[in-house]
Amino acid sequence: MRATVMYGAHDVRVETVPDAGLIEPTDALVRVTRACICGSDLWPYNSMAPSQTGNRMGHEFVGLVEAVGSDVRTVKKGDLVVAPFAWSDGTCEFCKQGLQTSCLHGGWWGGTELDGGQGEAVRVPLADGTLVALPVSADHALMPSLLTLSDVMGTGHHAARAARVGPGKVVAVVGDGAVGLCGVIAARRLEAEQIIMLGRHPDRIALARMFGATDIVSERGDAAIERVRELTGRLGAHSVLECVGHGESMRTAVSIARAGGAVGRVGVPQATTIPDAERTFYKNITIAGGPAPVRAYIEELMPDVLEGRIEPGRVFDRAIKIDGVPDGYRAMNDREAIKVMIEF
Amino acid sequence: MRATVMYGAHDVRVETVPDAGLIEPTDALVRVTRACICGSDLWPYNSMAPSQTGNRMGHEFVGLVEAVGSDVRTVKKGDLVVAPFAWSDGTCEFCKQGLQTSCLHGGWWGGTELDGGQGEAVRVPLADGTLVALPVSADHALMPSLLTLSDVMGTGHHAARAARVGPGKVVAVVGDGAVGLCGVIAARRLEAEQIIMLGRHPDRIALARMFGATDIVSERGDAAIERVRELTGRLGAHSVLECVGHGESMRTAVSIARAGGAVGRVGVPQATTIPDAERTFYKNITIAGGPAPVRAYIEELMPDVLEGRIEPGRVFDRAIKIDGVPDGYRAMNDREAIKVMIEF
Repeated sequence: MRATVMYGAHDVRVETVPDAGLIEPTDALVRVTRACICGSDLWPYNSMAPSQTGNRMGHEFVGLVEAVGSDVRTVKKGDLVVAPFAWSDGTCEFCKQGLQTSCLHGGWWGGTELDGGQGEAVRVPLADGTLVALPVSADHALMPSLLTLSDVMGTGHHAARAARVGPGKVVAVVGDGAVGLCGVIAARRLEAEQIIMLGRHPDRIALARMFGATDIVSERGDAAIERVRELTGRLGAHSVLECVGHGESMRTAVSIARAGGAVGRVGVPQATTIPDAERTFYKNITIAGGPAPVRAYIEELMPDVLEGRIEPGRVFDRAIKIDGVPDGYRAMNDREAIKVMIEF
Repeated sequence: MRATVMYGAHDVRVETVPDAGLIEPTDALVRVTRACICGSDLWPYNSMAPSQTGNRMGHEFVGLVEAVGSDVRTVKKGDLVVAPFAWSDGTCEFCKQGLQTSCLHGGWWGGTELDGGQGEAVRVPLADGTLVALPVSADHALMPSLLTLSDVMGTGHHAARAARVGPGKVVAVVGDGAVGLCGVIAARRLEAEQIIMLGRHPDRIALARMFGATDIVSERGDAAIERVRELTGRLGAHSVLECVGHGESMRTAVSIARAGGAVGRVGVPQATTIPDAERTFYKNITIAGGPAPVRAYIEELMPDVLEGRIEPGRVFDRAIKIDGVPDGYRAMNDREAIKVMIEF
């Protein structure tokens, strides 16, 4: 089968790899129908050390179940399913709490041992705990939005939850990628009163406004912080969604949070420490977040997608076939595309 | 009047200073009956640069109202009152939310402009928002416990709240000073199931056990982290109370928190960054806390003190008169005393 392999920085190839197949009785074999490239894929795209074996890529996909192991109970051949960006057993202490990204027996897609979503098929470990069946057909018009439930919509929602977004809250979103844009959707859905998007690119700003952003801050650095203060009666935001992961974006996030507020961080951290230990302390600012347990959120968010109340699939502004994946990485890295969908 | 002035590291003096008196119509003049030395006073005691003018010290006191300004409504001459470690207006946006330590018009005791609690009398700004009347006489047996409501008991409670302590939770307390010990009381009061105290000093361990600690970890560094893992089914604690403020204690705190758990930090941070940005991210660990809004907690905790359900006053293991304050600092700094009370 054909699949995406990354061999180093800026070295993404689509290759013929061994066909995916069942190994464990808890596995499912999924024929991928849609997948995508994630902003977090750009971290290794810019920094991965050269590798002889390469890493299989992709952690967001929707597909048709082609076969299941003898222990699988919740999905069957022919089901259309969405996979969260982490696989999980669904039964451990953390899964039962809804924190599937800390599953004691779960893990991450791709790498050197497992299939990734940016390929024609995937062996899904622990299928019962991982996959969620979709009640529509594979060519349904809402498929892009349903695909976002595998990561970016659930991740934006996690940022909003971690930042304690709720009715009447003033929210700021740092990061105008697909996750930040989904954070705007999540903040609106959770009834925030004011949603400030920090961003500069016209197409992303337009999407943010469509999703519910009430204010756009296009300044950078200290000027952006000052502008958010002006927009919030000089108090800052109750809830800040950090959707980048850079040290600098985290510094901005904690600087625009108001006393007693919270920063929900979902951007994979590129720095080893969290800045401003004193400022965040004296202002009683909570810092929360991490890898979103999107498996828990799929059921919460899916009705809103199916009934058209949210449309996160609009973050896809380019659709490609598998052979276009290397150029898809380039386009996202150059900020030519917000998010690229792969159609099989 | 006599009051405590710090002129530099290890240079604490008791001197005659100008008598405290009313200035603003919102002031109260309080004749101090009990005060104490705080673990946080030891930070400047060990690091303050030499100063010609010196800083007035003390932020925890109980006393009798001697006079009030014309605008003061909630306390009157003759009332026994407890003062929180920060003064606040009680009416701003943050005070109304119960975050009085971020009051838009409040501030901190002592320094070069205001009286401190470690002296015979204090001018209390914004008396209505700051002081809480006590329904007992100044020589009541519970006075030590009521005095802890000015800081350490409320601060331990804040750590527990920030760390989301609740019924059934596994709690770890980093720091065996008065705040950590009050954190044990708070965790027990909030119905934690297991309370692990990290500490080594026999007198502090004995007090921790009396307050409700179920396990004591006397190892240091990595061995302490390993021991907490052993005690928690290798998962770590749901709630970690960081009651020191050192970079190293914070590192321990985040290392012993379980996935999805929370660290409540109340130790004044001595480092500029929060460690382990990646570990806390991948484990979805929440970091919260800051200066405790003890003004909000006095009313919540006072009934438990008055009815004898909690006895935080036991953290005082030495009582002195004002002239003994310099030696009191030394004794706390040498860990000879847990917490020193000043009787007037």
